[in-house]
Amino acid sequence: MSTISRPQNPEENLRVKSVFDDIRATRGSDFINNLWYYLAFDPELLENTWRDVKEVMAKPSHLDAVTKELIYAAVSIANSCEYCIHSHTAAARAQGMTDKQYAEFLSIVSLAGRTNNLLNGIKVPVDKEFDHEKIIEK
Amino acid sequence: MSTISRPQNPEENLRVKSVFDDIRATRGSDFINNLWYYLAFDPELLENTWRDVKEVMAKPSHLDAVTKELIYAAVSIANSCEYCIHSHTAAARAQGMTDKQYAEFLSIVSLAGRTNNLLNGIKVPVDKEFDHEKIIEK
Amino acid sequence: MSTISRPQNPEENLRVKSVFDDIRATRGSDFINNLWYYLAFDPELLENTWRDVKEVMAKPSHLDAVTKELIYAAVSIANSCEYCIHSHTAAARAQGMTDKQYAEFLSIVSLAGRTNNLLNGIKVPVDKEFDHEKIIEK
Amino acid sequence: MSTISRPQNPEENLRVKSVFDDIRATRGSDFINNLWYYLAFDPELLENTWRDVKEVMAKPSHLDAVTKELIYAAVSIANSCEYCIHSHTAAARAQGMTDKQYAEFLSIVSLAGRTNNLLNGIKVPVDKEFDHEKIIEK
Amino acid sequence: MSTISRPQNPEENLRVKSVFDDIRATRGSDFINNLWYYLAFDPELLENTWRDVKEVMAKPSHLDAVTKELIYAAVSIANSCEYCIHSHTAAARAQGMTDKQYAEFLSIVSLAGRTNNLLNGIKVPVDKEFDHEKIIEK
Amino acid sequence: MSTISRPQNPEENLRVKSVFDDIRATRGSDFINNLWYYLAFDPELLENTWRDVKEVMAKPSHLDAVTKELIYAAVSIANSCEYCIHSHTAAARAQGMTDKQYAEFLSIVSLAGRTNNLLNGIKVPVDKEFDHEKIIEK
Repeated sequence: MSTISRPQNPEENLRVKSVFDDIRATRGSDFINNLWYYLAFDPELLENTWRDVKEVMAKPSHLDAVTKELIYAAVSIANSCEYCIHSHTAAARAQGMTDKQYAEFLSIVSLAGRTNNLLNGIKVPVDKEFDHEKIIEK
Repeated sequence: MSTISRPQNPEENLRVKSVFDDIRATRGSDFINNLWYYLAFDPELLENTWRDVKEVMAKPSHLDAVTKELIYAAVSIANSCEYCIHSHTAAARAQGMTDKQYAEFLSIVSLAGRTNNLLNGIKVPVDKEFDHEKIIEK
Repeated sequence: MSTISRPQNPEENLRVKSVFDDIRATRGSDFINNLWYYLAFDPELLENTWRDVKEVMAKPSHLDAVTKELIYAAVSIANSCEYCIHSHTAAARAQGMTDKQYAEFLSIVSLAGRTNNLLNGIKVPVDKEFDHEKIIEK
Repeated sequence: MSTISRPQNPEENLRVKSVFDDIRATRGSDFINNLWYYLAFDPELLENTWRDVKEVMAKPSHLDAVTKELIYAAVSIANSCEYCIHSHTAAARAQGMTDKQYAEFLSIVSLAGRTNNLLNGIKVPVDKEFDHEKIIEK
Repeated sequence: MSTISRPQNPEENLRVKSVFDDIRATRGSDFINNLWYYLAFDPELLENTWRDVKEVMAKPSHLDAVTKELIYAAVSIANSCEYCIHSHTAAARAQGMTDKQYAEFLSIVSLAGRTNNLLNGIKVPVDKEFDHEKIIEK
Repeated sequence: MSTISRPQNPEENLRVKSVFDDIRATRGSDFINNLWYYLAFDPELLENTWRDVKEVMAKPSHLDAVTKELIYAAVSIANSCEYCIHSHTAAARAQGMTDKQYAEFLSIVSLAGRTNNLLNGIKVPVDKEFDHEKIIEK
């Protein structure tokens, strides 16, 4: 169950069609995933969301493509976003992630969940040595 | 303020000393960060936590060192663990992360926060195309 | 799957019947949603929960009804409570929320997810200018 | 402690100056809060973040200004973003929020935290009656 | 920095005084912690919050006092509520929690953070054997 | 839908068989729940996860068995981990938790969600009286 209806023929709206065309061209694929169909209920929200996703995920980058998808998936797991977990895990695989890398990703994400709770529970004070300004002064 | 006291001379306990020695040897540094000092209040908790951190973060790996720290930091941001954010951002820098990479990391983490809320708000159904079993059958 | 069974004839219990009657009277509708049926397994928990919901959501108010439902839905999205997202989005519509308002709500909720992660990632210090006591002194 | 340094004279960079000028003009105030100073370490991240905040929060709107700030603050509370809580609570006051409205806001946000946990604990199934498609068919 | 001011002489308001008197009587102590001072800015919010805390935490109970505080602290850690973590950890100690129990509590809370992320990452399907209705049918 | 496939005959791998045998022996039951089947895709991840779960949950303990499961379930509710909520609520029942205790558990977990949001919203300063070091000095 979704809180809005999937529009029937969203591309009859020219703003929607323009975004969908750009998604297809950017990805080199005809497949448009559900996110964009549902967002088509409001062309402005669709346009802004796609613009930001394209800007961050599809532009020339200082991080490799698998790393970017894994960072995205890590946040999505911590936020319990089922759709995002599936879409970005699938994207990481499509970018070449191996099973070994995925197992290692899961071990890091779960270790983080463990120490996050441990440190938030004790409220360990942050070491001065982690201070960026101190580090760059050296 | 922390929920436990930082032990005064924790290495008088031999189990603690053994863990601290292994931390120094593994990291090639004399610096022991606060996390381990506080955990020394319970040697068993200290041993288990260090064993798991070492196992995941210090072993030969299928992901590069910066990527691992960024995945860790991403989860820590989503969980609001201040200590973990500082320690793993500092570790990523120590592993060679550039300012450009950090800016890109922040843009991915914040984009994920954005679309996590958007998709959790609408409850967009997950596309069948993301199903791993379907993908490997092809 | 739920962790408790939906009671068969909960209104045979007079404490439950009394709460259900008050829900119907307060809302002017015969429809009792699942939340209350499940809570009926423990009449005290049912009574306390309904009392608090009625007190906050059904009393004369300083905020309009759509705003109240949207604040409720916003927290529920951030907490990934599927039931709460659906019930309070439906309630906002029942109170007159338009599609344009809903799209704007989604854009605010997702922008908040974005900047929450950005600021928690950087740990930007809070401006003194935001301090309520300083503001009222002026 | 922050993970990046606050740039000293950020407006010497023309892209940064242009964003700061637009913030001042949009808000009709010379005050630039810390968020923007810190983001100035990466002009692209600064530009994109401001563009999105301006687009959502400063444009003509279908929700009133206090409501928008309260929705923003509600998500920020659920995500424990201290900076965001302070900035958007202060903004709501600046837009005219009264103490009575703030108390009511707090009561809704905390009631949501309560029932979110209750329903996530029991995993109450979502009522068919909340389905948007069923509602619009009637 | 807080979003509201701590009222100067809150007990001049009789509704506030009545709640404070009940807190002192219930706890058998003159100490009133900050939470109640700050909530005194709105007597209704103060009354409702205290009523619910008293009802749940101070009534005759089916769980022992340390267990109740630990469950409270566990949720507070997962939600990063610094105040709540400190108040309920202190309360657990006041109820007799030992250092050994606290270390074990921390190991459970952090293990939960670990497997929560692991299972949310993989989206392991829930076993039918966990279904309460099936269990009670046997 | 899961992000990995459930291995067909996982016990053909001797490392997997060894873990499964230990799970059966430790629990005195032939039932192996889905978590372990899915983790079998990576024997190392399976081994480490089981080792930690066994260490924390199955060892001689300073907390009783129901309390341990309830602390686990409390964190899982706050993190919206559906699988973990079901498995640890079922485990608490198997350890003897009554319906009355479960209702009380739910009332504590939901009260915590309420006051977590309230205190995170106001940012009430932590009382010095909660400081462990001050308490032990007395």
